[in-house]
Amino acid sequence: MTISIDDIRINGERLWDSLMTLAQIGATPKGGVCRLALTELDKQGRDLVTGWAREAGMTVTIDKIGNGFMRRAGRNNSLPPIMTGSHIDTQPTGGKFDGNYGVLAGIEVVRTLNDLGIQTEAPIEVAFWTNEEGSRFVPVMMGSGVFAKAFTLEHAYAARDTEGKSVKEELERIGYIGSEEPGDHPIGAYFETHIEQGPVLEDHDVTIGVVQGVLGIRWFDCTVSGMEAHAGPTPMALRKDALQVSTYLMQEVVASALRHAPHGRGTVGMVHVHPNSRNVIPGEVKFSIDLRNSTDALVDTMVNEVVAFAAELSEKSGLTIDIKMVSSYPAQGFHADCVDAVARAAAKLGYSNMPTVSGAGHDAVYTAKLAPSGMIFIPCKDGISHNEIEDAKPEHITAGCNVLLHAMLERAVVVV
Amino acid sequence: MTISIDDIRINGERLWDSLMTLAQIGATPKGGVCRLALTELDKQGRDLVTGWAREAGMTVTIDKIGNGFMRRAGRNNSLPPIMTGSHIDTQPTGGKFDGNYGVLAGIEVVRTLNDLGIQTEAPIEVAFWTNEEGSRFVPVMMGSGVFAKAFTLEHAYAARDTEGKSVKEELERIGYIGSEEPGDHPIGAYFETHIEQGPVLEDHDVTIGVVQGVLGIRWFDCTVSGMEAHAGPTPMALRKDALQVSTYLMQEVVASALRHAPHGRGTVGMVHVHPNSRNVIPGEVKFSIDLRNSTDALVDTMVNEVVAFAAELSEKSGLTIDIKMVSSYPAQGFHADCVDAVARAAAKLGYSNMPTVSGAGHDAVYTAKLAPSGMIFIPCKDGISHNEIEDAKPEHITAGCNVLLHAMLERAVVVV
Repeated sequence: MTISIDDIRINGERLWDSLMTLAQIGATPKGGVCRLALTELDKQGRDLVTGWAREAGMTVTIDKIGNGFMRRAGRNNSLPPIMTGSHIDTQPTGGKFDGNYGVLAGIEVVRTLNDLGIQTEAPIEVAFWTNEEGSRFVPVMMGSGVFAKAFTLEHAYAARDTEGKSVKEELERIGYIGSEEPGDHPIGAYFETHIEQGPVLEDHDVTIGVVQGVLGIRWFDCTVSGMEAHAGPTPMALRKDALQVSTYLMQEVVASALRHAPHGRGTVGMVHVHPNSRNVIPGEVKFSIDLRNSTDALVDTMVNEVVAFAAELSEKSGLTIDIKMVSSYPAQGFHADCVDAVARAAAKLGYSNMPTVSGAGHDAVYTAKLAPSGMIFIPCKDGISHNEIEDAKPEHITAGCNVLLHAMLERAVVVV
Repeated sequence: MTISIDDIRINGERLWDSLMTLAQIGATPKGGVCRLALTELDKQGRDLVTGWAREAGMTVTIDKIGNGFMRRAGRNNSLPPIMTGSHIDTQPTGGKFDGNYGVLAGIEVVRTLNDLGIQTEAPIEVAFWTNEEGSRFVPVMMGSGVFAKAFTLEHAYAARDTEGKSVKEELERIGYIGSEEPGDHPIGAYFETHIEQGPVLEDHDVTIGVVQGVLGIRWFDCTVSGMEAHAGPTPMALRKDALQVSTYLMQEVVASALRHAPHGRGTVGMVHVHPNSRNVIPGEVKFSIDLRNSTDALVDTMVNEVVAFAAELSEKSGLTIDIKMVSSYPAQGFHADCVDAVARAAAKLGYSNMPTVSGAGHDAVYTAKLAPSGMIFIPCKDGISHNEIEDAKPEHITAGCNVLLHAMLERAVVVV
């Protein structure tokens, strides 16, 4: 009896066991994981994963920024590999799934192919990218960023943690500084499975998110300057209340996102009031503005609206409003071929699925600059991530990996 | 040639000199004063002022909470004294005028009467009340509060500063713990001159504020509880943004004050956002609410409006809003006789004047519970007080003291 390729499935239990085993390295009492980039624990995690890869017959290449490429040979090894991957570093109070799932899903795909003796035309690779989280060293998505030449290797090497240790020193110390030049590594196509880190799939009771792209982001610091005065003796008409003026701009940040649905996002997350005393009218308020949308043009529109609103508000109130951009990340749409491959795989496997976007950055944003890329999202409990209580259901973990398997096989081509 | 009583004036230069001399005790490099209650500097200030009083022929009585009563005998000393006063302690970064002006204006009135050989029917007293500022020991307005039995002597004695020193220990140490029972001291009428500590008089270019009363105050702590979530992956419709909901309630605090003009005041001075991170939707926001108005009924109405608005907002948003009262100070109207005496004196002297209210507490709030009381406000620069740059014009200092002189003489009755 031969099995049709359409009928093959990964081993969900084995994948789950691997996730739980990796999660023991840096396990926290609350059920989360603390495995910061380039620490001793990160080394242990890398050793475990590369060990599993070698057991599965894969070769391991490490590049100069510590990115790992675990390769299962294809029939035609001159073809660029069909790649998957993510990261195995975590937030200080991170969970078991963020990043780790993307790497181990790749290992599970290879194990499944091995079990079934399936050969692919193109090689298959599983990558783990260095320091995606950015908790210990900035910038975030460091390994894939250097790989995509978003910034230089030297810039990344020079980054230091709060104790003054540099990325280069720590890479050397844990033995994960390779000889391959980052980026000197062809990619045929790239898929990344990841928990959604948001509530949309759960809210729609859908198993697979077919990720269309990653939202563009602009970060601003806003300062509203009024006049500090006593709350008692100062009549309303003579006030220059920086907080009251700020509240209108804070509302506009959200209003602008709502006007540019469905992917507009507007958030004021950080507020500092001066002098922050119960009976003193605030003289100065500083707050952050975070604007996101699916295209840079839409983000630009939102930014222009918020800035124009602030100018009008400043004129009306007589208070100074200063808005300064602090960061900008362009939107990144994924390649239609990859997006479609994910959608086709989900449909073929009978999983409920929907188009979705990623509001947060991922390594796939950088690979998308080099090769056709796509992402597969699965639901996470209550949309919570970057938290020790981050959780995902085994059936969703399995489903996402099955979609990955079939999307990769479509691109890598099974040798019959 | 005899001088008509209507023509007498205080010596503005002498009063100014006394203010500047007292301001040297605890002078700060920025031109302010730091003379915290019951410190060595407070003792020096008290010694200086009581020394001046004795030089002016006054007797000095200290009560058990350290309030000082400096008395110029009248013809009929069985009459309760016509009293003025204020405090000589300051904020840690206080100015030269807050409190100090009220005490030294009283001394100047007596010096003027002495110069002109004017005798009054009732005795005249100048009081300095212990720890009005409340910077070192709480509660504020401690001396006048114990005097008016708003709280007990034992309660005040037990108050400790951050170093653990008690009011009683410190009163003993500086030698200002008297034997008179606080409150066992009749008052015929009480006037207090004070800088406005607000911008109204300056804004109206008026010299004398005829204070009608002190606003009632209610303080609340408000907590809005939503759900902390990532700013990127969480669509607008699935958010429970505690800050956005808070902004509407913050605006209502001001709207309610505007609906209850002219004396309604609404302030949100203190805000704490959790977790206060740029890319995290605020899960919880705590902020203060300060509501004031000229009558308790008006304050009640404002409170009811704000609470009703919060309930509606909570229902509409689905977020929990908790509002807890932390302090309540009733409104205190001043006695018509005293208010009128101040208005008449200002008019007689040809000073521009207007009815006004005090948005902040003063010792006169407590004396008003025991005897007819009133206050005289003069402008201060930019309405700024509790600040080293607090400033007042010599001509306003003089004017306020002249009004005090004539208001007191009206009540004390000149012996012809």
